[in-house]
Amino acid sequence: MIYFDQAASSFPKPPAVAKAMAEAVNDYGANPGRSGHQLSQRASGMIDQTRMKLQKMFRNQSSDRVVFSLNATTALNQAIQGISWEQGDRVISTAYEHNSVRRPLERVKAESGVEIDYVRPTDLLNNWVEAIESKLTERTKLVVVTHGSNVTGEMIPIQSIGSLLKDHPALFCVDASQTAGVVPINMVEMNIDMLAFPGHKGLLGPQGVGVLMVGNDVNLKPIIVGGTGTQSETPNQPAAWPVGWESGTLNTPGIVGLLKGLEEVERRGMIEIYEHEKELTLYCLEGLNRISDVHIVGPKRAENRLGVVSFNISDIDGNEIAMILDQHYGVAVRAGLHCSPLTHEFLGTIEKGLIRVSFGPYNTKEEVDTFLNAMKEIKESLLE
Amino acid sequence: MIYFDQAASSFPKPPAVAKAMAEAVNDYGANPGRSGHQLSQRASGMIDQTRMKLQKMFRNQSSDRVVFSLNATTALNQAIQGISWEQGDRVISTAYEHNSVRRPLERVKAESGVEIDYVRPTDLLNNWVEAIESKLTERTKLVVVTHGSNVTGEMIPIQSIGSLLKDHPALFCVDASQTAGVVPINMVEMNIDMLAFPGHKGLLGPQGVGVLMVGNDVNLKPIIVGGTGTQSETPNQPAAWPVGWESGTLNTPGIVGLLKGLEEVERRGMIEIYEHEKELTLYCLEGLNRISDVHIVGPKRAENRLGVVSFNISDIDGNEIAMILDQHYGVAVRAGLHCSPLTHEFLGTIEKGLIRVSFGPYNTKEEVDTFLNAMKEIKESLLE
Repeated sequence: MIYFDQAASSFPKPPAVAKAMAEAVNDYGANPGRSGHQLSQRASGMIDQTRMKLQKMFRNQSSDRVVFSLNATTALNQAIQGISWEQGDRVISTAYEHNSVRRPLERVKAESGVEIDYVRPTDLLNNWVEAIESKLTERTKLVVVTHGSNVTGEMIPIQSIGSLLKDHPALFCVDASQTAGVVPINMVEMNIDMLAFPGHKGLLGPQGVGVLMVGNDVNLKPIIVGGTGTQSETPNQPAAWPVGWESGTLNTPGIVGLLKGLEEVERRGMIEIYEHEKELTLYCLEGLNRISDVHIVGPKRAENRLGVVSFNISDIDGNEIAMILDQHYGVAVRAGLHCSPLTHEFLGTIEKGLIRVSFGPYNTKEEVDTFLNAMKEIKESLLE
Repeated sequence: MIYFDQAASSFPKPPAVAKAMAEAVNDYGANPGRSGHQLSQRASGMIDQTRMKLQKMFRNQSSDRVVFSLNATTALNQAIQGISWEQGDRVISTAYEHNSVRRPLERVKAESGVEIDYVRPTDLLNNWVEAIESKLTERTKLVVVTHGSNVTGEMIPIQSIGSLLKDHPALFCVDASQTAGVVPINMVEMNIDMLAFPGHKGLLGPQGVGVLMVGNDVNLKPIIVGGTGTQSETPNQPAAWPVGWESGTLNTPGIVGLLKGLEEVERRGMIEIYEHEKELTLYCLEGLNRISDVHIVGPKRAENRLGVVSFNISDIDGNEIAMILDQHYGVAVRAGLHCSPLTHEFLGTIEKGLIRVSFGPYNTKEEVDTFLNAMKEIKESLLE
């Protein structure tokens, strides 16, 4: 099996991930932070280690403000639904957002009368910053952008947007679902107030862990309340980070698995991983461009672009191509809308969707060759 | 290590749990239900199997209405915060509730003007049903009770409460955190509209999975919205079960681990597990009763009682005893408030808390002997 669905979940994982998870289950499967005994302490110690490594990797101000949840979607809901919205508040977002940003935004719009602008560059220049600046008002309470599109692979210049917002009170939230573990992010330098990402994509951890990192000055209402292991006597949720935003038992095996993923990212180096994926991307773009009737979306070159290539062939149904790739060639890709209908509306591909291939650190040029040859054969057989 | 903190998280887990989780990570770590390729299909197939097994075990009407989340706390927040509350609506709950029920209730009270009655029996008879009936009005929209207290081990007669509510429009929600996997529950027969529980306690699965089972007639607003893998083009959350209530990537390894826990519960038999824990509980109660100055809370006998025994000794600090048990005797217990301050207020133990021992299917009488001998020695050394 050649796995080119890395943008949905990275695979394979480093062998240390499952090993550490099995240890967490078999050797210290106690409830972290709820009891004082040795097993519980060992579990909470591993969780704290993961928190500290994440804080260092993404340069958040405080490891207490690294909040674990189920997935990046929950992290983004916490970020967006956790703001104290008032009628007339405004949000700026982009046409590249995943439904995990768009749907929480549409909910606060419906419930709180918030206005949303989904911006996109208006000319051929990559003017994301100008597009955002043109919508910025004193009522703007949140600017939330994806760091990189899961459809086109295009990256959005978060450093420049952070600079733009430096003296503006709006919160700056970044969805790093496609970039965490691949593109370095420094929350303090980039002026990011909230950073959300999953553990199971570029960070090479298992499914079941999402992370929200929150700046020290950000006020956020927890969306889930309940047992926190501290200040149990108060009927209201305690305002203590991180426990006040992490009610209930955490996914200890998942978090420990993520720690091993983070260690692997450190060992290989984020820059090296990015360069590797860029090389595969460029190679794939060149190969696809040589096949007539293939229409590729997104930036034409590998610069400023993630390891994500989406395309269609003439008007052939993408799902059919994905099925043939899977069943006849053993190549896993993803066809459809990729939970990002805004992007497809922008691209004019909302009806048919696209075929997406996405690369990870363990993919090889030989695998891309196999895929390109398969695409040639498929295209010839379907279009002849 | 003798592990008597089963009410916080069961340990050890059946060996098949970690093994299946490692397979999920190493052999088919793709995103379930997001793509059509083989790895993704295998992941979603395992999740569907778990859903169906849960539906059969707890007799929900439909396996589509088995909703996975991070933990029981999230499941309970979904149940409670997901109701369309109106000013003046009423809730009946109990004095035995965990903060995972109490805090979401206090939130809807503060935000929506809902009135809450936390009932408790007013005399020596176990009259939970009468206590609830006395508060029932036509404005009662929800009755939410724990099936068994995580402090006293006392069980609440949910079957009778379900009967009471049969012709009342109020939703009946049960927190089965302490009973799922130990006491049979039949949602249809017991007239339960929503049943919430964790995977990592009596069901012997790993941490990281909570379950909410919802009756076919229940309307519930999702608290987390985002990518669902279906109907991606709509800006609002699709009302399709279960995906509309499970936004974002699920914890595949955790759910697969839970499946193995469920299989082990089936293999051993829920009744047999309950009888085993009852025997240990009775044995422990008898032994503790023979130690002077030990004050045990909860039902005096093992009937209608879970494998949870809480006590204190004279006015010795429970945390000190728990620490000695851990460090000198290798016995893991939990001291404090157990995230259930309402119960401790009721018992008059809110200041000092209690020491709690809790049993699981793998604990033995010999372990209880070791614990009882340790308690005698500790008590003598601290009180002499």
